[in-house]
Amino acid sequence: MIPAAALAELSSLLGDRLSTTRSVCDQHGRDESPYPAMPPDAVAFADSTDEVARIVQVCARHRVPVIPYGAGSSIEGHLLAIRGGLSLDLSRMTRIIAIDADDLTATVEAGVTREALNDALRHSGLFFPIDPGANASLGGMSATRASGTNAVRYGTMRENVLALTVVTAAGKVIHTGTRARKSSAGYDLTRAFVGSEGTLGVMTEITVRLHPQPMAVSAAVATFDSVADAVNTVIRTIQYGIPVARVEFMDIQAVRAVNAYSKLSLREAPTLLFEFHGSEAGVAEQAETVQAIAHEFGGTDFEWASRQEDRSRLWAARHKAYFASLQLQPGSTCVTTDVCVPISRLAECVTATCADIDASGILATVLGHVGDGNFHVLLLVDPADPQSRERAEAVNARIVRRALDMDGTCTGEHGVGLHKMDFMRAEHGEDALDMMRALKRAFDPLNLMNPGKIVTLD
Amino acid sequence: MIPAAALAELSSLLGDRLSTTRSVCDQHGRDESPYPAMPPDAVAFADSTDEVARIVQVCARHRVPVIPYGAGSSIEGHLLAIRGGLSLDLSRMTRIIAIDADDLTATVEAGVTREALNDALRHSGLFFPIDPGANASLGGMSATRASGTNAVRYGTMRENVLALTVVTAAGKVIHTGTRARKSSAGYDLTRAFVGSEGTLGVMTEITVRLHPQPMAVSAAVATFDSVADAVNTVIRTIQYGIPVARVEFMDIQAVRAVNAYSKLSLREAPTLLFEFHGSEAGVAEQAETVQAIAHEFGGTDFEWASRQEDRSRLWAARHKAYFASLQLQPGSTCVTTDVCVPISRLAECVTATCADIDASGILATVLGHVGDGNFHVLLLVDPADPQSRERAEAVNARIVRRALDMDGTCTGEHGVGLHKMDFMRAEHGEDALDMMRALKRAFDPLNLMNPGKIVTLD
Ligand SMILES: Cc1cc2nc3c(=O)[nH]c(=O)nc-3n(C[C@H](O)[C@H](O)[C@H](O)COP(=O)(O)OP(=O)(O)OC[C@H]3O[C@@H](n4cnc5c(N)ncnc54)[C@H](O)[C@@H]3O)c2cc1C
Ligand SMILES: Cc1cc2nc3c(=O)[nH]c(=O)nc-3n(C[C@H](O)[C@H](O)[C@H](O)COP(=O)(O)OP(=O)(O)OC[C@H]3O[C@@H](n4cnc5c(N)ncnc54)[C@H](O)[C@@H]3O)c2cc1C
Repeated sequence: MIPAAALAELSSLLGDRLSTTRSVCDQHGRDESPYPAMPPDAVAFADSTDEVARIVQVCARHRVPVIPYGAGSSIEGHLLAIRGGLSLDLSRMTRIIAIDADDLTATVEAGVTREALNDALRHSGLFFPIDPGANASLGGMSATRASGTNAVRYGTMRENVLALTVVTAAGKVIHTGTRARKSSAGYDLTRAFVGSEGTLGVMTEITVRLHPQPMAVSAAVATFDSVADAVNTVIRTIQYGIPVARVEFMDIQAVRAVNAYSKLSLREAPTLLFEFHGSEAGVAEQAETVQAIAHEFGGTDFEWASRQEDRSRLWAARHKAYFASLQLQPGSTCVTTDVCVPISRLAECVTATCADIDASGILATVLGHVGDGNFHVLLLVDPADPQSRERAEAVNARIVRRALDMDGTCTGEHGVGLHKMDFMRAEHGEDALDMMRALKRAFDPLNLMNPGKIVTLD
Repeated sequence: MIPAAALAELSSLLGDRLSTTRSVCDQHGRDESPYPAMPPDAVAFADSTDEVARIVQVCARHRVPVIPYGAGSSIEGHLLAIRGGLSLDLSRMTRIIAIDADDLTATVEAGVTREALNDALRHSGLFFPIDPGANASLGGMSATRASGTNAVRYGTMRENVLALTVVTAAGKVIHTGTRARKSSAGYDLTRAFVGSEGTLGVMTEITVRLHPQPMAVSAAVATFDSVADAVNTVIRTIQYGIPVARVEFMDIQAVRAVNAYSKLSLREAPTLLFEFHGSEAGVAEQAETVQAIAHEFGGTDFEWASRQEDRSRLWAARHKAYFASLQLQPGSTCVTTDVCVPISRLAECVTATCADIDASGILATVLGHVGDGNFHVLLLVDPADPQSRERAEAVNARIVRRALDMDGTCTGEHGVGLHKMDFMRAEHGEDALDMMRALKRAFDPLNLMNPGKIVTLD
């Protein structure tokens, strides 16, 4: 419950941009995960950094939890208002503050989505590579340390965020980092906030690195007899240092889903989608080398998508794979896994996982940003059958255990939210978790910023 | 002063690996900066993570400051024992724990130097790119967030450290990160310690990313009529997205110094050194494009060093430029600047800086990792003449001011130490500095880890 005095202050600050309407609160108390909604008590739609600071100050004074909200596309229960409070929606903060093409940087408000940023960059010769399957906000992507299909070449939000404007838990406005490409000027506050999932403060402006649009692009699809052959092709590609821009894995079930949903006719087999960026000659050379590697592992049907439309269709289909998977069993929700392992262990990890899924009898698709050693299993769950969710969670727990045993991580890009909290001790150990708690207490002494996520304090 | 009881405990733990000898303490109380030594009260030579933990526990119990010591090559006063205490020398911890060639990672003890690591990698087909001019330790390099000539292509320690073993200020051993290439599993403890200059804990093991040795390498030297022409060539190269592996600037004075010291006969003019990595065809293509850009800016004498010996000689000379500069005025020490600016401002920044140096009458060389927007001025100082140091510091302060006005940083790679502390408020603002102080207090509540560096707490 938000105290009436706090609501009154917020309301006089925001007018009709403060809402306590049931449907608005419900929509802000859930994400794309199967968690049932836990709505906040109110939603504030902020317009500026200054306004965010005032809102946070009011909430701090009245001890009201604040949950920053970007595009709502997260999938680990990040947005659930488990202690009530205020959802602070940044989706109206959509100003593109600066595009410094000469410096390959852009500064945007937190609510700008990755698609909006790339639209704004269309005629600049530059692009912003990070592309989660959803049209997420730059604030949300920074907060979850997101990545996607291009990370193998261009890095994740960790590497691509240069500087931030942050409203701290005390409601102060700070700037972290500069537009210089590197710095050794003290503690890395930027990377303390990147990946902090709204638990340390609110990012209101984000400066990111941009990249020159490649002179040439080509894409290809290859299919394999086994999961191991496909994954081993990727491992070899990475070990050779080929600067592949994208390399995505789909298992048979995922190919089926994508074919049906996006009206493609890919061969139903373990599949890799490649994209190469560079000069004409460079792209041709990369593609040739990778094709040779794929052949070594029995890869067939190496098919080129050299026309821009074919490539767009292919990647659009890949980006819709999540919704395509859900349609394999209409009405279902899904438990998503997100482990990431050292690349040498990837074939073993994916193969064991596929066997595990088969044995479980759960309908699932496997999709992977495999160049980074990261893959997702989408385990379909019948929302009406609690046991189906439990069975899926059991598979997820085994997948995580397997990844940790291989010196990997429980989440490569989606974040902890609520769903991965149980694995934090196993991954980091109690003493490292204590350091995380110390950091949380130092930055948010009242435990009001998205409380109860990442680590608990009690 | 270290209490006698503490010394006794340390001595029974370490035997003759604890030293209070004057010369040993003096040597550990200084670095390569012009600061006069401020020796610690004792020096401990640790052999293992476990031993580091015990040493830190003893020091915490007795409230003894601990200053981690790697190779002693830092240049901002990092190692001065301004509050006495114990220098914790890690240079004996030189085990290469694992080289996982398949995963492109290595795990080493903190005392392993970059040259030792690359020696160990010689036959693996891999290398570790980060190369400060000195043969620094991986622990020290992590602690200063170091980079060097290759960072423009391969990133800095920020991007290349995957995981750490850290002894916390309380003497606990924690592991941060995993060998997975990316992770969203909570706060980024790894990057909290990278760049923390010994003020948050002691890194005892470091897991770094390795990179495939390029199939082909070529290097070239080009000279220009003006500083601006040279720098603009670099700016254009970066803006075109050419993945140049190294691009280093030397002003006329630096060329003179290098010629004299390393017996080269480079033309005395503003100079760029390039290195290209890739396939045979890729390297040729990059070199051609860059040569065309250089020509546009009047670059001449584009000279190729295609033989490995010539390249090695060239880069060895560049790496010795610091000592070569000192020899321009034998007996001198030097004040080093280390600003880094957005690349579009680089020509303006370097040109204004050169004019400033000329006007000051100080003998100085300008050297730069210009692909990142980072450059150093080595201002020669007569140790017998305090005013000469003051004049140099005044130039440094103006250079920093200029860089900050351009949205740059006071230190691109050397770190804060003592020497850059005065600029921290101007760069970050008081409220961001307060967040750094909060982080320091959270991780080191007794303020015993290299106290008085980066930020002061009182
Ligand atoms: C179909 C689909 C595909 C996906 N594919 C990928 C993928 O390939 N890679 C990937 O990484 N993710 C993927 N995701 C997950 C999701 O898109 C990312 O987590 C994304 O970064 C969330 O951004 P958002 O704007 O939707 O944030 P939200 O969901 O609104 O919020 C996410 C978290 O960030 C916090 N937050 C939001 N904005 C701010 C801010 N300004 N300041 C501080 N904290 C803030 C919130 O409190 C919350 O904890 C996918 C999701 C879907 C539904
Ligand atoms: C000639 C010359 C050229 C240089 N060129 C470059 C360059 O191109 N790029 C660049 O980045 N730097 C350069 N430097 C600076 C220096 O080499 C780097 O700062 C280097 O990273 C220091 O490493 P070190 O092992 O010598 O650390 P030290 O000097 O021993 O220590 C540096 C700091 O790190 C802390 N520290 C050391 N080890 C640990 C540990 N294990 N855990 C926690 N804290 C620790 C110390 O307390 C201290 O604060 C140069 C220096 C010289 C003398």
